[in-house]
Amino acid sequence: MGARAGIVVTGTEVLTGRVTDRNGPWLAEELRRFGVDVAHVLIVGDRREDLRSALRFLAGTGVDLVITSGGLGPTADDLTGEVVGEIQQRPAELDVALEHRIHAIVTALMSRRGWLVDPAATAAGVRKQALVPLGAAVLEPVGTAPGLVVPVADGQGGPPIVVLPGPPAELQGMWPAVLADPIVQAALSGREEVRQRTLRMWNTPESELAATLRTLEPGLGGLEITTCLRGGELEIVTRFGAPEQTAYDDLATALQSAYPDTLFSYDGRTVDDMVADALAREHLTIATAESCTAGLLAGRLTERAGSSEWVLGGLVVYSNAAKRDLAGVPEELLERVGAVSAEVAAALAEGARSRLGADVGVGITGIAGPGGGTAEKPVGLVHLCVAGPSGQLPRTIVLPGSRTDVRTRSVTLAMHMLRELLVGSQ
Amino acid sequence: MGARAGIVVTGTEVLTGRVTDRNGPWLAEELRRFGVDVAHVLIVGDRREDLRSALRFLAGTGVDLVITSGGLGPTADDLTGEVVGEIQQRPAELDVALEHRIHAIVTALMSRRGWLVDPAATAAGVRKQALVPLGAAVLEPVGTAPGLVVPVADGQGGPPIVVLPGPPAELQGMWPAVLADPIVQAALSGREEVRQRTLRMWNTPESELAATLRTLEPGLGGLEITTCLRGGELEIVTRFGAPEQTAYDDLATALQSAYPDTLFSYDGRTVDDMVADALAREHLTIATAESCTAGLLAGRLTERAGSSEWVLGGLVVYSNAAKRDLAGVPEELLERVGAVSAEVAAALAEGARSRLGADVGVGITGIAGPGGGTAEKPVGLVHLCVAGPSGQLPRTIVLPGSRTDVRTRSVTLAMHMLRELLVGSQ
Repeated sequence: MGARAGIVVTGTEVLTGRVTDRNGPWLAEELRRFGVDVAHVLIVGDRREDLRSALRFLAGTGVDLVITSGGLGPTADDLTGEVVGEIQQRPAELDVALEHRIHAIVTALMSRRGWLVDPAATAAGVRKQALVPLGAAVLEPVGTAPGLVVPVADGQGGPPIVVLPGPPAELQGMWPAVLADPIVQAALSGREEVRQRTLRMWNTPESELAATLRTLEPGLGGLEITTCLRGGELEIVTRFGAPEQTAYDDLATALQSAYPDTLFSYDGRTVDDMVADALAREHLTIATAESCTAGLLAGRLTERAGSSEWVLGGLVVYSNAAKRDLAGVPEELLERVGAVSAEVAAALAEGARSRLGADVGVGITGIAGPGGGTAEKPVGLVHLCVAGPSGQLPRTIVLPGSRTDVRTRSVTLAMHMLRELLVGSQ
Repeated sequence: MGARAGIVVTGTEVLTGRVTDRNGPWLAEELRRFGVDVAHVLIVGDRREDLRSALRFLAGTGVDLVITSGGLGPTADDLTGEVVGEIQQRPAELDVALEHRIHAIVTALMSRRGWLVDPAATAAGVRKQALVPLGAAVLEPVGTAPGLVVPVADGQGGPPIVVLPGPPAELQGMWPAVLADPIVQAALSGREEVRQRTLRMWNTPESELAATLRTLEPGLGGLEITTCLRGGELEIVTRFGAPEQTAYDDLATALQSAYPDTLFSYDGRTVDDMVADALAREHLTIATAESCTAGLLAGRLTERAGSSEWVLGGLVVYSNAAKRDLAGVPEELLERVGAVSAEVAAALAEGARSRLGADVGVGITGIAGPGGGTAEKPVGLVHLCVAGPSGQLPRTIVLPGSRTDVRTRSVTLAMHMLRELLVGSQ
């Protein structure tokens, strides 16, 4: 067994879902790449006793390192540094030089934002952030809050605790300093390479895959396989140590031959990667015309840097007038078959192509709900069409779930239709 | 102290961030509304030993109820039911009637999707899902997996464990049955009302707020106040029992008088609510023309049901040709000042208004990065303009962070500019 770490994410706003935690998963994945296994991520509110019990639990699981995120701000509910110092039995002391450095950062930041500074308020906040448990290493601030590496007091047992700020950009910016810290390096000296490979399937039931995996079972020892279904996509992630590479290769080959049509990605690439690569490679341009998804497909297609090379733009055609005036859908067609119809989806795809002068066009029209459904056109009914130089690919589906589910699943389906049109195979 | 619960979210895909957990926060908030406090959410991978230690930790914190999500599927990595049965010392038995019900659901689902069914694979998966710890109550499937309420074996101490499926729609659909279950009701009999109120500020530094809260401190006993900064918005959430209502009202009044210009929401309403309400109330329509945000603002404006009453549509103008042809930005202007300029943002806003015949138009153009920045126009530079019948509101900003950060913060800023234009005050 190699090195192991535990993670505590603090913040009542995270515990109650007002903010989605991005730090726990990010840290878990970075640690894995570094060869460190993570068994638990604990989310706790801004309460002293709950943070204490979470830290004690992780120490009790025998991990080599504990990492916390959040609770380093200037407000009274930010208490991570203090509680960690107490757990590690290291009383806090003001680091005057650090106080000066933080003060300079904070005042520069406020003046850049044009905010009025209350000197006393600022000084009190900064002083709180410059309290350092005796014997802890300071990680220089990336934003305003410094991080800490706090070993347990001499003569006591327990893992060192790395204390990081909550804002993901600050935490991620501080990460290289964490890995370079001598206390962290000593704690994780037992790390071993953990490989991770991902296969992706589209339109295969999870139970089929489960049955296939059962038949392969005798050869799967040492492979940690997890499958996850979301929005019609089945992701198979396998983790293993270097000696299991051959067992993994055998598994991948067996699955490829069992699912030649639906296993669309062997190398971890997402449908987004495949569509972007195909557009770039073929020097094709793309444009969208979206009704119920209202720009979300265009937003997804432009997530990656450099997408301006192939994405020309799009039309958000929420009203019928916009469908007619912007995308050129004939008024007569809208009246005859209605806005939510296969014909209008095709007209939107072609309208996007012609209005933006793109090679490929995508049209989406549907009923995201929760209102607006009828017996013939229920909530969740979505018509999609992808049109390219070689022809059209239409699809009609009734999607389950909430308004948000219907919208995001429609976008994912459109991505797979683009893959089909551009890369081929199902 | 009222009733308390702990939550375990299972799934290696959640632990490693391939899937964002929506169940932990949702359950925490529902429990709060029901009068139950949650101190910890634990995320564990699909490993027996890690799930066991998480369940034991929560039982050890003295909670009245434990709730798990995930790990109820047909694949071998789905092991929650089995581990919970073992922890509660209740061996599993096949529930034949339940097996038949699940089988009917699964085959109907597959035939609706047009998937070929392998009868043996299906039967094996279904049998696994119909294993029930002796003496546990079954919660009928909403999707394919049943939930469980598993009390600890007679004569043993410990909280009952509620086992729920991972897909959020299934978990949420099963929730009413959880609250109606007699074992759950008995466990949570000590529940007490926990009120929660939210104030929102825009453009106030967190350290200023911290200083204000310190001056109010003597009156804040019994209020659990958490503040959270994201994308320039400062959210102040306060939880308290019914006897503390007056203390909370005093706090809210004090903050309102301290921050008359920047405290924009007293009643939990979001900027999205305020913009939507203003558009609906004034019978105004809106349209967008987005470059760097590429449809994300249109997507956000249409998140809520009924938005088709005021959102007409939008233009995603990624290329210069699209800015010219779709939004009517003069070629001469693009050449003279460049696509990323205050002038083009204003032209986009007016172009959106006129092309879609809307009352209000929003134009956004910027450099989301990571490439494309220059000394004069750095990555993160964004020009926005909101235009309405009463005039234009322009803004220029340099946003920090990643490509995703720049895009989402631009959208949030645009929402606040709309609020300013439509609702007034800063």
